[in-house]
Amino acid sequence: MNNTLIFGHKSPDTDTICSALVYADLKNALGEEAKPARLGDISSETQFALDYFGVTAPEYIEKVDEDVDNVILVDHNEFQQSVDNINDVRISEVIDHHKVSNFETKEPLYFRAEPVGCTATILNKIFKENEVIVSKENAGLMLSAIISDSLLLKSPTCTAEDREAAYELAEIAGVDLDTYGLEMLKAGADLSDKTALDLVTMDAKEFTMGDSKVQVAQVNAVDTNQIYASQDAIEKEIEKLINDNNLELFLFVATDILENDSDALALGQAKGNVEKAFDVKLDEHNRALLKGVVSRKKQIVTNLSEQF
Amino acid sequence: MNNTLIFGHKSPDTDTICSALVYADLKNALGEEAKPARLGDISSETQFALDYFGVTAPEYIEKVDEDVDNVILVDHNEFQQSVDNINDVRISEVIDHHKVSNFETKEPLYFRAEPVGCTATILNKIFKENEVIVSKENAGLMLSAIISDSLLLKSPTCTAEDREAAYELAEIAGVDLDTYGLEMLKAGADLSDKTALDLVTMDAKEFTMGDSKVQVAQVNAVDTNQIYASQDAIEKEIEKLINDNNLELFLFVATDILENDSDALALGQAKGNVEKAFDVKLDEHNRALLKGVVSRKKQIVTNLSEQF
Ligand SMILES: [Mn+2]
Ligand SMILES: [Mn+2]
Repeated sequence: MNNTLIFGHKSPDTDTICSALVYADLKNALGEEAKPARLGDISSETQFALDYFGVTAPEYIEKVDEDVDNVILVDHNEFQQSVDNINDVRISEVIDHHKVSNFETKEPLYFRAEPVGCTATILNKIFKENEVIVSKENAGLMLSAIISDSLLLKSPTCTAEDREAAYELAEIAGVDLDTYGLEMLKAGADLSDKTALDLVTMDAKEFTMGDSKVQVAQVNAVDTNQIYASQDAIEKEIEKLINDNNLELFLFVATDILENDSDALALGQAKGNVEKAFDVKLDEHNRALLKGVVSRKKQIVTNLSEQF
Repeated sequence: MNNTLIFGHKSPDTDTICSALVYADLKNALGEEAKPARLGDISSETQFALDYFGVTAPEYIEKVDEDVDNVILVDHNEFQQSVDNINDVRISEVIDHHKVSNFETKEPLYFRAEPVGCTATILNKIFKENEVIVSKENAGLMLSAIISDSLLLKSPTCTAEDREAAYELAEIAGVDLDTYGLEMLKAGADLSDKTALDLVTMDAKEFTMGDSKVQVAQVNAVDTNQIYASQDAIEKEIEKLINDNNLELFLFVATDILENDSDALALGQAKGNVEKAFDVKLDEHNRALLKGVVSRKKQIVTNLSEQF
């Protein structure tokens, strides 16, 4: 029997964790052996969803064991966001909704990326294509992933397909979409127990823009001022990350989930590119309000890349 | 209205041409504007299929015009196999069945690769998913693509899905699969009017293996001895290509479509890697018989890559 491991990106978000769990369950239903895994800590938002639907988190792995035959990547494809020994494993499948970059295989594979707002939306289609019934738990996890990636259907990344899937899944999961969604987002936005290091690493992604290495970290908050009360400590952690990883830019994005705006902090040699990308001026604290910006993928990375 | 261009790889084979034609037709049936194009000359095999089903070849393009909004890549994804100005265009979709390599986008896209033997097999599924009826012409083109890529269903790349699609499409196209297939392959294997330059370029693909540039050219023949009657002239053309393109290796593969073997000619500094990859000795003419080898993708490129 094939030994297959399914995992999402480092600094896992709710879509990454839920998609790994749900896709492994679907594979099992189809008679294929597959186990979910994760590459980092579970966020409080994700934990809320897991607890709500009574599902156990996937096992943490540092690297892929030698006895694993295949890995399936969900919710990412770029190798720098994946497991450290990604170059030594056989990738049999990718299910993703991001741009394709820094990815290659030696053999043909099943690679399915669609320009939708969430990996779980694609998984919901795959259930239908294979005529497998979606359980209450799987519906709850996929719904949570869509709510998380779309900030309750408000992000510009959210497509009609995501919206339709969300309403359909809420019905199966037996929850009211808005009530459950806001509760889950607030659980993730409860940052009271987070250290400055937690804040800058809990959802950070690295990108290569031009020849430069850039990290963009995003945290959701109900009150962004509360985050920046500890700006000094946050800056110290970011400066350390910039030095340790030779980053040209670290952009820290605090997103207000009620206002749907972001208060961003830019550090590093290339911080001027943030001003150009969003047509803003960084204030004396290196911060700027990005009006209506909530999507790292569609509003931040695309605009920022063009400046490098 | 969006201005979309659909094309396959350079040195177009039957799958590349037919997939571009068929997918453009499907897009039009779905109310989306799209035009097929090609990046090189039509082979005599492909011409046979086009003539048989009364379809005109797509227009030749040297590069993508500035007024094109999107391009869709079929039957390839690696940029070195694509149009020269691929870095300046927006890729909205990829439909392919090859390994993924040297490909990236700035934005999310629809990327669909499946480990089947032919792009047309995937297109046949897309017709069904969209509930569009397959015309006799489109069935004939897709069938021709499958026959070509699978060497009449005999290649190890040919999957159960390809086989099923082929029989289904032969029915719609109103032809006997084996009779039509052999006729088409023989039309392609008629090399009587080919110059040595034609032979080494008509179906050549470039790959990056390790840090080395490698080209693998393949021609189908009924009698491979007839090809090597002009080995001196062929070698001269290959040496020129090696010099002009800084190749470490040029592997010329003459595939016997009746015996399903290949007689290969290896030139370049790294020709020793061919011996290691296939456990053969090149004779004094730098040639070796590769028993049972008919698939560039599954039998040649994978084995050869490991040696670099
Ligand atoms: Mn996602
Ligand atoms: Mn093909």
